[in-house]
Amino acid sequence: MNLNLADAVTIATAVRAQQVSATEVAIATLDRITARNPALNCFTTVTTETALADAAKIDRTIASGQDPGVLAGVPFAVKNLFDIAGITTLAGSKINADNPPASQDATAIARLKQAGAILVGALNMDEYAYGFVTENSHYGATHNPHDTNRIAGGSSGGSAAAVAGGMVPLTLGSDTNGSIRVPAALCGVYGLKPTYGRLSRAGAFLFASSFDHIGTFTRSVRDAAIAFDVLQGWDSRDPVCTQRPPEETQNLVSAENNGKSAYNIDGLRIAIAEDYFRTGAEPEALAAVERVAQALGATQYVTIPEAHRARAAAFIITACEGANLHLTNLRSRLEDFDPATRDRFLAGAMIPASWYLQAQRFRSWFRDRVRAIFQHVDLILAPTTPCVAPFIGQQTIQLDGREILVRPHLGLFTQPLSFIGLPVLSVPVARPDGLPLGVQLIAAPYNEGKILQVAAMLEAEGAIAASIVN
Amino acid sequence: MNLNLADAVTIATAVRAQQVSATEVAIATLDRITARNPALNCFTTVTTETALADAAKIDRTIASGQDPGVLAGVPFAVKNLFDIAGITTLAGSKINADNPPASQDATAIARLKQAGAILVGALNMDEYAYGFVTENSHYGATHNPHDTNRIAGGSSGGSAAAVAGGMVPLTLGSDTNGSIRVPAALCGVYGLKPTYGRLSRAGAFLFASSFDHIGTFTRSVRDAAIAFDVLQGWDSRDPVCTQRPPEETQNLVSAENNGKSAYNIDGLRIAIAEDYFRTGAEPEALAAVERVAQALGATQYVTIPEAHRARAAAFIITACEGANLHLTNLRSRLEDFDPATRDRFLAGAMIPASWYLQAQRFRSWFRDRVRAIFQHVDLILAPTTPCVAPFIGQQTIQLDGREILVRPHLGLFTQPLSFIGLPVLSVPVARPDGLPLGVQLIAAPYNEGKILQVAAMLEAEGAIAASIVN
Repeated sequence: MNLNLADAVTIATAVRAQQVSATEVAIATLDRITARNPALNCFTTVTTETALADAAKIDRTIASGQDPGVLAGVPFAVKNLFDIAGITTLAGSKINADNPPASQDATAIARLKQAGAILVGALNMDEYAYGFVTENSHYGATHNPHDTNRIAGGSSGGSAAAVAGGMVPLTLGSDTNGSIRVPAALCGVYGLKPTYGRLSRAGAFLFASSFDHIGTFTRSVRDAAIAFDVLQGWDSRDPVCTQRPPEETQNLVSAENNGKSAYNIDGLRIAIAEDYFRTGAEPEALAAVERVAQALGATQYVTIPEAHRARAAAFIITACEGANLHLTNLRSRLEDFDPATRDRFLAGAMIPASWYLQAQRFRSWFRDRVRAIFQHVDLILAPTTPCVAPFIGQQTIQLDGREILVRPHLGLFTQPLSFIGLPVLSVPVARPDGLPLGVQLIAAPYNEGKILQVAAMLEAEGAIAASIVN
Repeated sequence: MNLNLADAVTIATAVRAQQVSATEVAIATLDRITARNPALNCFTTVTTETALADAAKIDRTIASGQDPGVLAGVPFAVKNLFDIAGITTLAGSKINADNPPASQDATAIARLKQAGAILVGALNMDEYAYGFVTENSHYGATHNPHDTNRIAGGSSGGSAAAVAGGMVPLTLGSDTNGSIRVPAALCGVYGLKPTYGRLSRAGAFLFASSFDHIGTFTRSVRDAAIAFDVLQGWDSRDPVCTQRPPEETQNLVSAENNGKSAYNIDGLRIAIAEDYFRTGAEPEALAAVERVAQALGATQYVTIPEAHRARAAAFIITACEGANLHLTNLRSRLEDFDPATRDRFLAGAMIPASWYLQAQRFRSWFRDRVRAIFQHVDLILAPTTPCVAPFIGQQTIQLDGREILVRPHLGLFTQPLSFIGLPVLSVPVARPDGLPLGVQLIAAPYNEGKILQVAAMLEAEGAIAASIVN
């Protein structure tokens, strides 16, 4: 087993079978982080001591004959906006560094630990999750493992690069407008943003409450499925969500379902998003979609109407909610913000409420239109990003003959979808000769199961594959 | 039966027993409107033709031996923001007068008609429901039947004065910050604002969607109960509400429950709101609360914390949502607004989104605090208005030695309660020697049944009584 490339299920299987101890895995992981992190700058904290203690505990559980959990011994790390008991939650900021340590783990962390996974650290991000680049002025840029001159994407850049860079098989991130999917695509790994409200956000430092989701980065579809299963379930600490999936949607996807026999995608109606989602993208981004569509035999096209307005409305709501969250600090500690986030928060603080309400009003309209599309279609394909990872420091990009700002443009195809909370998996297309790119598999709310089934089939056929730097 | 004073149940009972025909009731009602409306200015439209046709239909139903409905032959009228098929919905404005006629009745109207009630017209209001006075610059002021030099209150002033002035026993209004309760109190009738979301708003011209409720004005508690029963139930046309009462709360209150035996208030924990709700009120407003408390043997006091902030937050949300709704017309037809609403809408259009979000954030906090109070208390008593009806044109009022603006101040005690959608019945206290005043009976969401039971007992004991001008 090459730990740098192995997925979580492979590691847990070996640990549970006592082919390797959790402690051995933890030590190897910590060594790998020590070796690779200086070049990639993914980790802002490495929890060496507690990781080794937790791994020893798993080993004792196994030795005593008890079940150590489905993720026994699997190392994982989290975007540094998740609370880790005893550590200050940075959320990518200098300001939050003055906060006291968190008193308890975020629910998502607690659930992964409960399943036997070993937390090894916290990961770099754009300040307050407001960005697609992870070029953080306080903690430095995270580098793309496939070309360290390039960005990893953001805002969960550390989470994507840690998985793609062979340091851990599983990380947590958050996605408000594309912050899981964009870095997953640019780093060549799987990024799952589940349905809005499906996974508890308790203990995660929020950004724009209307849109914030948490999710996972993995090296395989089955890892995305099993982690999703572990993370699900009612949480009284969840600050926001009151709506819960009906019982029958729980645990639809389990590791057991990822045997070949479960890839029943017969009868699934799969369509390619056209118009907006085929405009402003580099040819290779569209080719990636074409590659996945061909593997699925998908030839139908579908238009998601007014997607450009959905993106505009998402910008407004994000800026308003983000600015409101940070208003006190904007007044008193303006100079301590990252310049890249500061100016947008300031602008957001001055947006009239009428714009915000209009954006929310449009959102209802848009949700109803897209809901109608899912009466006729089960799954929609769209590019994740319009291009491969830009260079660190690159300000603009040439697309369709126009010079466009890199930072906002990376979310072109992700923003209209998180706007209405749709579940999306960004899958890495197989591109042996090029930098990684992702394709979004999009379904109706609470249909993560369909997405994961299709992704598992694509992965088995070799149309998609995580691209990990050994 | 004196139709000017009779309640809806009395009229329906007589019509169903064929002691009087629906047509006779309708003609007498229309005559009364012709006689009284010039002095009171309640009606902006009288639907003579359809009222007579509908009454004739009820009479034919009765003659054929079929059930004409529990409100058979009961005349009713609606605030002119409810859609009436074939008539333009004014919502108190000059601008909306240019709109085409409504294509169908509002759900609330359709349900009352379905129960046999006869629609006789539409009623005056503050423009776009933004006010507590019904001094409408386009359609004139509505006069208080108890002293025509005084206001009827607002914004459902026409609805309250039509019931108090002996023209109809039942009207519909809407309440955003107090627009049912304030005029009900100032005119001496019952005003029921049910739980937010409980009654369908389909076909009602909204004002501030976060707060808009519809409800009733009646001459008796049993009328409030029976109309509430008729108006309840799922409505696919309802534009806003997704949350519905659980099945067991449906039809808790029916006319049958209003026999003496049903007044089981033993064990109900009733408290008087203190602090905020006893500050800034005239002595007679507090005496009215005391009168009700004594009749109920209530001696316990309770503090609703931060009620002043709840009112402030309600102001912000109302202004923002109202301004957003009218933004297009504010840009193009500013001069056609009532000056009293125009300036507030303009100000609302410029409020930053951050304030709006902060107000909504506080709302969650406040809702949780009040929810905790209802763990220990079943019913809370508070004054409806701080004073009796001011004079038409009166700008300020002396309260606690301070000169205060009349218009906003009338909602002092109502705003913090609709802010979190609590059900409230404003009951008219018996004041033979003074102008009417109201007391709010406040319960936890979906506990209208408790409120109506207590009100029925108070009414039976003579502590409260509608005050109708014959």
